[in-house]
Amino acid sequence: MGIVAPCRAHFDDCLTLQCGVTLGGFDLVYETYGTLNAERSNAVLICHALSGNHHAAGFHTPDDVKPGWWDTCIGPGKPIDTDRFFVVGVNNLGGCDGSTGPVSENPATGEPWGAAFPTVTVKDWVRTQAMLADRLGVHRFAAVIGGSLGGMQAMQWAIDYPDRIANAIVIAAPPKLSAQNIAFNEIARHAIQSDPDFLGGRYYEADKRPRRGLMLARMIGHVTYLSDDGMGTRFGRELKSGDIGSAQDVQFQVESYLHYQGTSFSEKFDANTYILMTRALDYFDPALESDGDLVRAVAETNARFLILAFSSDWRFSPARSGEIVDALIAARKDVVSAVIDSPHGHDSFLIYNERYFEVLGGYLDEALRRLDT
Amino acid sequence: MGIVAPCRAHFDDCLTLQCGVTLGGFDLVYETYGTLNAERSNAVLICHALSGNHHAAGFHTPDDVKPGWWDTCIGPGKPIDTDRFFVVGVNNLGGCDGSTGPVSENPATGEPWGAAFPTVTVKDWVRTQAMLADRLGVHRFAAVIGGSLGGMQAMQWAIDYPDRIANAIVIAAPPKLSAQNIAFNEIARHAIQSDPDFLGGRYYEADKRPRRGLMLARMIGHVTYLSDDGMGTRFGRELKSGDIGSAQDVQFQVESYLHYQGTSFSEKFDANTYILMTRALDYFDPALESDGDLVRAVAETNARFLILAFSSDWRFSPARSGEIVDALIAARKDVVSAVIDSPHGHDSFLIYNERYFEVLGGYLDEALRRLDT
Repeated sequence: MGIVAPCRAHFDDCLTLQCGVTLGGFDLVYETYGTLNAERSNAVLICHALSGNHHAAGFHTPDDVKPGWWDTCIGPGKPIDTDRFFVVGVNNLGGCDGSTGPVSENPATGEPWGAAFPTVTVKDWVRTQAMLADRLGVHRFAAVIGGSLGGMQAMQWAIDYPDRIANAIVIAAPPKLSAQNIAFNEIARHAIQSDPDFLGGRYYEADKRPRRGLMLARMIGHVTYLSDDGMGTRFGRELKSGDIGSAQDVQFQVESYLHYQGTSFSEKFDANTYILMTRALDYFDPALESDGDLVRAVAETNARFLILAFSSDWRFSPARSGEIVDALIAARKDVVSAVIDSPHGHDSFLIYNERYFEVLGGYLDEALRRLDT
Repeated sequence: MGIVAPCRAHFDDCLTLQCGVTLGGFDLVYETYGTLNAERSNAVLICHALSGNHHAAGFHTPDDVKPGWWDTCIGPGKPIDTDRFFVVGVNNLGGCDGSTGPVSENPATGEPWGAAFPTVTVKDWVRTQAMLADRLGVHRFAAVIGGSLGGMQAMQWAIDYPDRIANAIVIAAPPKLSAQNIAFNEIARHAIQSDPDFLGGRYYEADKRPRRGLMLARMIGHVTYLSDDGMGTRFGRELKSGDIGSAQDVQFQVESYLHYQGTSFSEKFDANTYILMTRALDYFDPALESDGDLVRAVAETNARFLILAFSSDWRFSPARSGEIVDALIAARKDVVSAVIDSPHGHDSFLIYNERYFEVLGGYLDEALRRLDT
């Protein structure tokens, strides 16, 4: 994608969130790649996961070491082909990369919102993304695409805006979290909230950050993103230092890796946003309003669906994606699905894999053809 | 078992641990149930896991709410039948329930050892358990039995004392930890060590305890002890409080359960011991001295083996137990194995299950018959 730049959209509208709290206005930071065609029919929305943001592809400066988080997949000639699609990435409300969130000033107090920032749900995100689409002149997305928490947004789009989404691409996402999923999220939240530097979420004013808690939260998350086999292949029982025979100063490579991942994440991500995002994950349950019946929940959707899962993903396993597929079939919807063989666990959705990219690229190619006819 | 009482054995002997540090002497706290026969041939050693101790069965007082940790399995008429076996439970060296460990006074300083207590390995435990056996007049155990970390001790017994163990019963234990296993342990350690009240392990002197860290460590452990399906059946997405529709004050039952488990554990267990025990788990690798060849590692064993695993255990899965079985078969050893169908994950080894208890009881019955002939 080369060099890209973020944009900011300010909304003066009052926004009443699902939790009942009204924001007097808000900002969304976003990026676009490619060109919106004259028919305004080639727009694709990329929804991010727990720690993602609007910067999905390209570099911000020539010196950037890392491109956007899904640069493998988005760009000219890539599965989400910017020569053909107008791609929109957005930092969700409650995020920490420029959109209004816990780091932003609460107009009522003049201080950062902190932990007092209202609870935001997947439904709220979809609604604000639709407001951004209006601003961009996009009435109907050719596709809404996301992995993990992003996939949940794609699904909610199909339910809440049946006429504004042609294709919902739901990757490595369950119809709702299991007790085990919630448990891991709660441990991560507890790690942050029990860090003395969290200060009840008002750490900004004290010029502190709950680094230890956020580091732990990320370490826990990371283990659940990788597969047991994948970690075995990558790290095994290799030592970083020490001698296991004499049980002295032993550090395994996997420990060193987790420390590195945890430390770097804790320097750049906001702890209140982390808590907010995990809550959105936990609360997501589109079938709640239809007494747990997912078939009824998707009854009014008009989108075509692509549901993808990865063989070694134990966080959101293929069986969980299968529940979505089953409900769509039962509701007589148009659904294509595949389980991609990959050793990388939940992280697979971010990683190049020949079959994955062929399925995704092929589906989008067919989607364009269908839109043109 | 009724009321039981712990005993204390003091050893004046200097003990040089695998890490090279020499202890000038040490105590082991233990309990026995049943009667040692005249031939001294009916002794069974119970090895405990991460958070266990010597109190494996019975009650300490008539008012005790909870019996010993394996009371389901040990007692008159139970699989480990105290009418027929002389059962020994011991708190391992480094423990926090009476045996010498981080809580004990370091004679060199007059202060508690704390984090300076030397690293202890499974091999060290087996050696000190053999010293306790000498003290009890037991030359050869009819069986050494343990689940999880306890199973690793049973295996090490067969390797280190081939003539002192007739049967090794290894339940829900792998031949060594995977990278994922180590990762979870390291996160638990990191949670404890990054708690400001840990004070580098010298929290006793400051009259503090790293409760937050130990609570987190236990919460992480707990999720890995239960199965995804088991948690789903038990908790699902049931709410303890709040309303998910309005995303207000939501607490899921599983969150409440984890808080309760974590809090109660953090009040009674020692954090330095927790770190020490997880290190012993990580370092266990009986094949290390034979270049990773487990077949060679068990070549000199004389014990008969029973290897048990549980279908839903993802911490130490049936496939990992299968690696031990395969090595024993390749080494032409006498091995019986079974995978027990159970929804309770790794915790299954502590829980009544008809087939599990029949297999274990039947194997031990046959073991006695073989010893008698």
